[in-house]
Amino acid sequence: MQINLYLTPQQADELALREKTVVMIDVLRSSTTITTALAHGARQVIPATSVESAVKISGNLFGDVFLLGGERNGKMIQGFSLGNSPLEYTEERVRGKSIIFSSSNGTQALAKGRHARTLLVCGFINVSAVAEVLQRIGGDLTILCAGNEGSIALEDAVCAGLLMHRVAGWTADTPGLPDGASVALSLHKAYGKSPLKMLQASEHGRHLVGLGFGDDLRVCAGVDACSVVPSFEGGVLKTLPPPPRAAEPSGSH
Amino acid sequence: MQINLYLTPQQADELALREKTVVMIDVLRSSTTITTALAHGARQVIPATSVESAVKISGNLFGDVFLLGGERNGKMIQGFSLGNSPLEYTEERVRGKSIIFSSSNGTQALAKGRHARTLLVCGFINVSAVAEVLQRIGGDLTILCAGNEGSIALEDAVCAGLLMHRVAGWTADTPGLPDGASVALSLHKAYGKSPLKMLQASEHGRHLVGLGFGDDLRVCAGVDACSVVPSFEGGVLKTLPPPPRAAEPSGSH
Repeated sequence: MQINLYLTPQQADELALREKTVVMIDVLRSSTTITTALAHGARQVIPATSVESAVKISGNLFGDVFLLGGERNGKMIQGFSLGNSPLEYTEERVRGKSIIFSSSNGTQALAKGRHARTLLVCGFINVSAVAEVLQRIGGDLTILCAGNEGSIALEDAVCAGLLMHRVAGWTADTPGLPDGASVALSLHKAYGKSPLKMLQASEHGRHLVGLGFGDDLRVCAGVDACSVVPSFEGGVLKTLPPPPRAAEPSGSH
Repeated sequence: MQINLYLTPQQADELALREKTVVMIDVLRSSTTITTALAHGARQVIPATSVESAVKISGNLFGDVFLLGGERNGKMIQGFSLGNSPLEYTEERVRGKSIIFSSSNGTQALAKGRHARTLLVCGFINVSAVAEVLQRIGGDLTILCAGNEGSIALEDAVCAGLLMHRVAGWTADTPGLPDGASVALSLHKAYGKSPLKMLQASEHGRHLVGLGFGDDLRVCAGVDACSVVPSFEGGVLKTLPPPPRAAEPSGSH
């Protein structure tokens, strides 16, 4: 398996991702929030890179029951009914609805991967479920960390390290990897034992605590709390259906 | 002290670096080669972002004895008399000469910092000397890692971690830092004990070994082998003169 890991989406060339298997990681908080929304029964999440395009999309969704969600710099967007806190995306609020979603980093990263053959959304919350899907798909893997306004985000790199470990069994000592992958595996080794502590120490985590979103960090740190894998297709994110059940092995073997 | 650390120069905004104290790190190999050239008596190193501009600069240096040096993708440039191996920059070859120098990543990173108030060049080879200068200057610090074609280079991040540790005493556990700084300090903790082993395992290090430059890695891993601090001013890199000697303390104290 070849790995391509981008610590920020700005490093990635949109066209180079065409036909690739791509995983987008934005632990704080888009990955966690999108996964939670789908786990709580949202029909789909429609990513929009700008507030304007989110509003425009909402104008075209005649028949649908939709909600506008997202944030800029951690704060709710004026006129939107949901922010980017996974705790807001309760079953009561989102079941059966389409969520038009725009965030500072996550949706920009998703836009970079929109021409990928497969584009999945991963956070700590669903890392093993994503790893399982990737093992099933096989082949090369591109990881697109959302980062923080063009800079590395510690939490995305640590989660990328954990994902690679789950998919391929790699560790910080695995030889022959690209530097980005070695860095992520090394950070996973250093910080992976306590994701919550790491989130609380991270730059964006401190920013969120300052905004009063400290409780979100517990949700975002919840490794494997959920088995939903959001998958992007035709402009929307939906829950990837479970694989077809393998046929029962015949008695003669 | 505030720290700003860019793991790739592409992340940095040239104008935002104006009036800042900036350190450029390109361990493999520009930092090491430039420092070695000046340590071996080169009059100056003139960075050029392109081969064309290097040749153009050479056409304007009527009186000077100059040499063209550098690389693209690790390999020597046609028509240049020196590559980017520090081992080529012997006293015999470079003493008294101006070196017009162009490399894949290092000179591009230097160009980003050209409007800085102070712009220093750092590798493992001179890290403590650079740290000493930074402590004397005081104030905030920007570190510009050259990276590898827009992606993180493990060796530059590890060296940045070591530099911050030397300047400010920070470790991977220091709270309140930006994520880039925490990442570099964590990588320094993981890999700093054996810089040579780390270089041999790194992506660019493996590439250089493949090109037959394995011996260069030993030079580039030589922490504090040299006390020269290259400083950029007026378009050229020269050795920063030692600080004025402090007056002897009077006998009465």
